[in-house]
Amino acid sequence: MGISTTPVRGTKDYTPKEVEIRDYIQSVILNTYQRSGFQKISTPIMEDIERLNTSEGGENLNLIFKILKRGEKLNLNAVNLNENDLVDIGLRYDLTLPLARYFANNQNELRYPFKCIQIDKVFRAERPQKGRLREFFQCDIDIIGEDSINAEIELIYTTSLVLLNLGFSDFTVRINDRRILTNIIANAGFRNEDIANVCIIFDKLDKIGWDGVQSELLKKGFETQIVKKFIDTVSNPLINKLENLEGLSIDYKILNDVKTVLSTIETLSRGKYSIKYDISLVRGMGYYTGMVFEIVSPLFSSSIAGGGRYDKMIGKFMDKQIPAVGFSIGFERIASIILENNMINLPKNKSIALLYCENDVFCDVITKAESLRMEKYDVAIIKRGKNLGKQFKFLQKEGFDFAFVFWENKLKNLKEW
Amino acid sequence: MGISTTPVRGTKDYTPKEVEIRDYIQSVILNTYQRSGFQKISTPIMEDIERLNTSEGGENLNLIFKILKRGEKLNLNAVNLNENDLVDIGLRYDLTLPLARYFANNQNELRYPFKCIQIDKVFRAERPQKGRLREFFQCDIDIIGEDSINAEIELIYTTSLVLLNLGFSDFTVRINDRRILTNIIANAGFRNEDIANVCIIFDKLDKIGWDGVQSELLKKGFETQIVKKFIDTVSNPLINKLENLEGLSIDYKILNDVKTVLSTIETLSRGKYSIKYDISLVRGMGYYTGMVFEIVSPLFSSSIAGGGRYDKMIGKFMDKQIPAVGFSIGFERIASIILENNMINLPKNKSIALLYCENDVFCDVITKAESLRMEKYDVAIIKRGKNLGKQFKFLQKEGFDFAFVFWENKLKNLKEW
Repeated sequence: MGISTTPVRGTKDYTPKEVEIRDYIQSVILNTYQRSGFQKISTPIMEDIERLNTSEGGENLNLIFKILKRGEKLNLNAVNLNENDLVDIGLRYDLTLPLARYFANNQNELRYPFKCIQIDKVFRAERPQKGRLREFFQCDIDIIGEDSINAEIELIYTTSLVLLNLGFSDFTVRINDRRILTNIIANAGFRNEDIANVCIIFDKLDKIGWDGVQSELLKKGFETQIVKKFIDTVSNPLINKLENLEGLSIDYKILNDVKTVLSTIETLSRGKYSIKYDISLVRGMGYYTGMVFEIVSPLFSSSIAGGGRYDKMIGKFMDKQIPAVGFSIGFERIASIILENNMINLPKNKSIALLYCENDVFCDVITKAESLRMEKYDVAIIKRGKNLGKQFKFLQKEGFDFAFVFWENKLKNLKEW
Repeated sequence: MGISTTPVRGTKDYTPKEVEIRDYIQSVILNTYQRSGFQKISTPIMEDIERLNTSEGGENLNLIFKILKRGEKLNLNAVNLNENDLVDIGLRYDLTLPLARYFANNQNELRYPFKCIQIDKVFRAERPQKGRLREFFQCDIDIIGEDSINAEIELIYTTSLVLLNLGFSDFTVRINDRRILTNIIANAGFRNEDIANVCIIFDKLDKIGWDGVQSELLKKGFETQIVKKFIDTVSNPLINKLENLEGLSIDYKILNDVKTVLSTIETLSRGKYSIKYDISLVRGMGYYTGMVFEIVSPLFSSSIAGGGRYDKMIGKFMDKQIPAVGFSIGFERIASIILENNMINLPKNKSIALLYCENDVFCDVITKAESLRMEKYDVAIIKRGKNLGKQFKFLQKEGFDFAFVFWENKLKNLKEW
């Protein structure tokens, strides 16, 4: 036996059947995006560790897999060695930072505004007991260079279309604007420098409830009166009606934009899904600057897609600010929902198991397979087993439509068998 | 400006046009493999560093990207710190070691023999001045559990079919058997423990020529007489005729198997490509145990695909030996050949650029796009530019077939423009 065969903690092997369905889901996602005029790009999995460390990825910055320097660059004899001396590369934790770098690096070859697709792996050293993967796919679309809410509308519309095409229904888009939330936080009396911290705690509402949010805020040392005013405002169910926000000295345009997104998506959804405003929606990333949104489905306990506007990130790589919005589908979540609920019938060619004996001339067997493939069958060449009846049963279970018995020159329908 | 925008050394950003072609090439490869009855699997990019270090990957073991331990596992204050104390995971350098682990880990859910496909990224810290990528794709098929040469034949036939389907012609399959070569090396007088080293030097023949091989062997301290006998034998052009090997006390079955592979592939190729025996073919990996093969094309200076039999690797993960053969296409090489030689016409839907004005109701614009997509057009929604004529020209260059001018409700054929 010797060497262990289990994959690295938090990573997974996928069986042929799982891969078939996962690939098919990705092809539906990609096709929907592409038919909508988005263009797929590809960036490296490896990123400069400095770029990753200075990105505003919130909690994710603590979850970066870091790669040891190589050759002469690695000095293990330095005094007071620290982690940063040892590493120069990290694995990306999302697809947004690489996209910002990519746009700055390749802008002359890209359309503007640039509507792009990324379907690729990201890596986070999550605590595996949470049941989360450490190596997983995300499917993102982003619009770079459009400052109007047309970008938000198109991303929400297109992501919802993907979910409809994959068989999801009755899902809900939740939207908010970071600026509304920060305004309310500031109005309650918090100082500007505390707003980010209040957001992080408020983001836990789903998990810890109103009492939890209140007690965590108090534990942080914020004044009781301020905390109470904040909680009273945001826990009031009426606040999710936008007209009730109008008294709160929030920029009219911000409220109006949210209203337009709500009404436009409601029209475009034709009742197949819904959209609602939700003051408690924060989204974890530090880099969001405007609207944020996510999609929840009755089939899953947390969100299956999330995104928002990040107008200040690309400017870090350029000499000017460039507006940008993105929406990311949590591929692993929707794939597991689709697998568990058997939501997909794979489109497939008819398939033949071409059975041959040890004595058959293999060259002739392949030639036969070739001619059957010309007739549009998928053909797997398989050596006959000892018990032919048992083998037919197995092949049927494996999904083959026919067996071709080479030494008898006979086609056998396994579905009728 | 601030942060640099270039990708990590040895890695690449791909433009939308490159991605389109690369994805299409991968889909042709995958489709050919799948129609031939191979099944795609997926394994993690991250592998246990111990498994990687003890694999027989030859030179590649020096090129592994290693990931720093996290949290409490990382102790920077240890005395005599060495690399192995700091890392627990590495990025895979090929797809064969992960496959061996995968097979052992999942055998109960797999067909046997198992014919599998992997199209995935691997990582090697090559010296970038060689022009080689450090993060790149490989496309592998393997047959696990078949000890007859039917496995070799099917892999060579299917890989050649992929190349034909991608528009390659006049390529040559070179084959050898490690056991023939080691027999000749031993016959020349080298000791068994030196055979691997002699192979490594002989493998450089393409680069350093016969004189180079001879002088490197002598430099290693091998006896002049032995080196001379070896060089005389293998540099004799007649040796590549298999009948001339029969006098060299090589197992009859080994020679006969090579002959059968040669004649079978020659028949199956129908003159579209060729196959030849080549005693100088070594292939770098330490894990090969029998036949080795590669494909060379007049369009590229080195091989575009390579593989061989590795009957001793999977046994390391199990309580018994399992025979296996694999053939890997160097995706980056064939992709760059195809791009440079313009070998592919992408199959595409007709596409429309839907142009709209600031004043148009965006909800109506999307609804129009929706109805055009129903008519099988791909539709990109694009804001009108200042100079419409210039924009039409740009859209034509970008490959759009039509522009739909929303505010005039008019379809314009860009190809005729």
